[in-house]
Amino acid sequence: MARFKLVLEYAGTRYSGWQIQKNARTVQGELRRVVYEVTKKSDFEIYGSGRTDAGVHALGQVAHLDVETRMAPEPLRLAVNDLLPADIHVLSLTRADKHFHARHDAVGRSYLYQISRRRTAFGKPYVWWIKDELSLPRMRAAARLFRGMNDFRSFTDQKIEDGSTKVLLQEVAVVESGALILIRIVGSHFLWKMVRRVVGVLAEVGRGTMGESEVKGLLTRKARAPAPLTAPPSGLFLERVFYEDDPAEFPIVPLLGVTRA
Amino acid sequence: MARFKLVLEYAGTRYSGWQIQKNARTVQGELRRVVYEVTKKSDFEIYGSGRTDAGVHALGQVAHLDVETRMAPEPLRLAVNDLLPADIHVLSLTRADKHFHARHDAVGRSYLYQISRRRTAFGKPYVWWIKDELSLPRMRAAARLFRGMNDFRSFTDQKIEDGSTKVLLQEVAVVESGALILIRIVGSHFLWKMVRRVVGVLAEVGRGTMGESEVKGLLTRKARAPAPLTAPPSGLFLERVFYEDDPAEFPIVPLLGVTRA
Repeated sequence: MARFKLVLEYAGTRYSGWQIQKNARTVQGELRRVVYEVTKKSDFEIYGSGRTDAGVHALGQVAHLDVETRMAPEPLRLAVNDLLPADIHVLSLTRADKHFHARHDAVGRSYLYQISRRRTAFGKPYVWWIKDELSLPRMRAAARLFRGMNDFRSFTDQKIEDGSTKVLLQEVAVVESGALILIRIVGSHFLWKMVRRVVGVLAEVGRGTMGESEVKGLLTRKARAPAPLTAPPSGLFLERVFYEDDPAEFPIVPLLGVTRA
Repeated sequence: MARFKLVLEYAGTRYSGWQIQKNARTVQGELRRVVYEVTKKSDFEIYGSGRTDAGVHALGQVAHLDVETRMAPEPLRLAVNDLLPADIHVLSLTRADKHFHARHDAVGRSYLYQISRRRTAFGKPYVWWIKDELSLPRMRAAARLFRGMNDFRSFTDQKIEDGSTKVLLQEVAVVESGALILIRIVGSHFLWKMVRRVVGVLAEVGRGTMGESEVKGLLTRKARAPAPLTAPPSGLFLERVFYEDDPAEFPIVPLLGVTRA
């Protein structure tokens, strides 16, 4: 059995998320089908670094694959890409240590969220279009409140025992790029819906319908009400998964130039 | 009756082209439906500057609309955009002179074609992905052959009387932007399939499977064989329609950043 590390990008629009399901088209499901077609082996396993929800995209999802094959990594990657749908693409496929685990070994994850201030004919599947005026300075000030260790109980519907809703965020950055507002959130791990609720709160703050004290309230241990708004999946990209020894810094680049000079 | 000039962008992927047809979803058809919903008038007319084929996109299609309405241009534009599908967007809607005609008054048109050297999960609907090595210098040299007045009989399936296949091209530019090769073609008018066949020939030249003399052969009056390759509609954008007094120069900007730094 050989172990491979895969880095994948996909447009989540047509998929019911990453995780394989019966009677639903998923990214992992497509990958399984194609690896079988290429290798003709039925006893192989694919593990992702984590799930992405329906409609959420990935620029750098990581998975590992255990399969018995005599194919070298690059011919295997090309053969898999040839059979994958056009909206799933294996960026790299390399031999991995037999102890490497895409999920257990991940030390951090980075998500990118695209808000568009403009309606465009091309952006819809990849942005959250917000008509209202958004204040960047207010959004940036609120973003700072999320950094560090906080309790994200109000930002998830996940049922978890008390205390395990604490998450350390290394970065919550709000960057303007033309008509796009890009929000990058980097943390060790994330709770279900957490990124989209943080973005929803930042949008409310940008609109002026929420103040900093309300944001602080949501982040205290005593918070009971859930965050008021969950941003749509279309704007969300799993940007990168970090492992030991990966460089921690990389530039924020808007994926889609939905505006023109 | 008031006359309005509209500038529109659309993603052509889901449409059977611009021109209204029975039993097919078209851009003009969607626009008609929405203008009726907004104005409740049934006796109005929409004329485009020209057709775009199925799957072809537009960044600046122009149309004029004659309709009896008391709505001011900007509220009318917003009301129309609110009801249009997400992949059609009216960029501007302004009052026009009663003699303005979107097609008859157009003095030039600019098309942009996107070739991608890379497979990506996001680019498919907006590029022609070419795996083979393409030589930019060879493509640029061949592009020069198309400039000026030439006979494009080999570049169209349109049935037209002899002599009327001559077209003056002001610009055939080949520009590199990351993994994209952008080809801009500007001319007074275009024959059916002409842009996609010029791009097809440039790709063959880039691959090294066609030489300059063969390109010259296709452009002579004696040419009988059609150009060997028609580029797919996905990469093609109607970029701009020019009228008297419009500025002639504007920068080439890739629409979709399908690569990341």
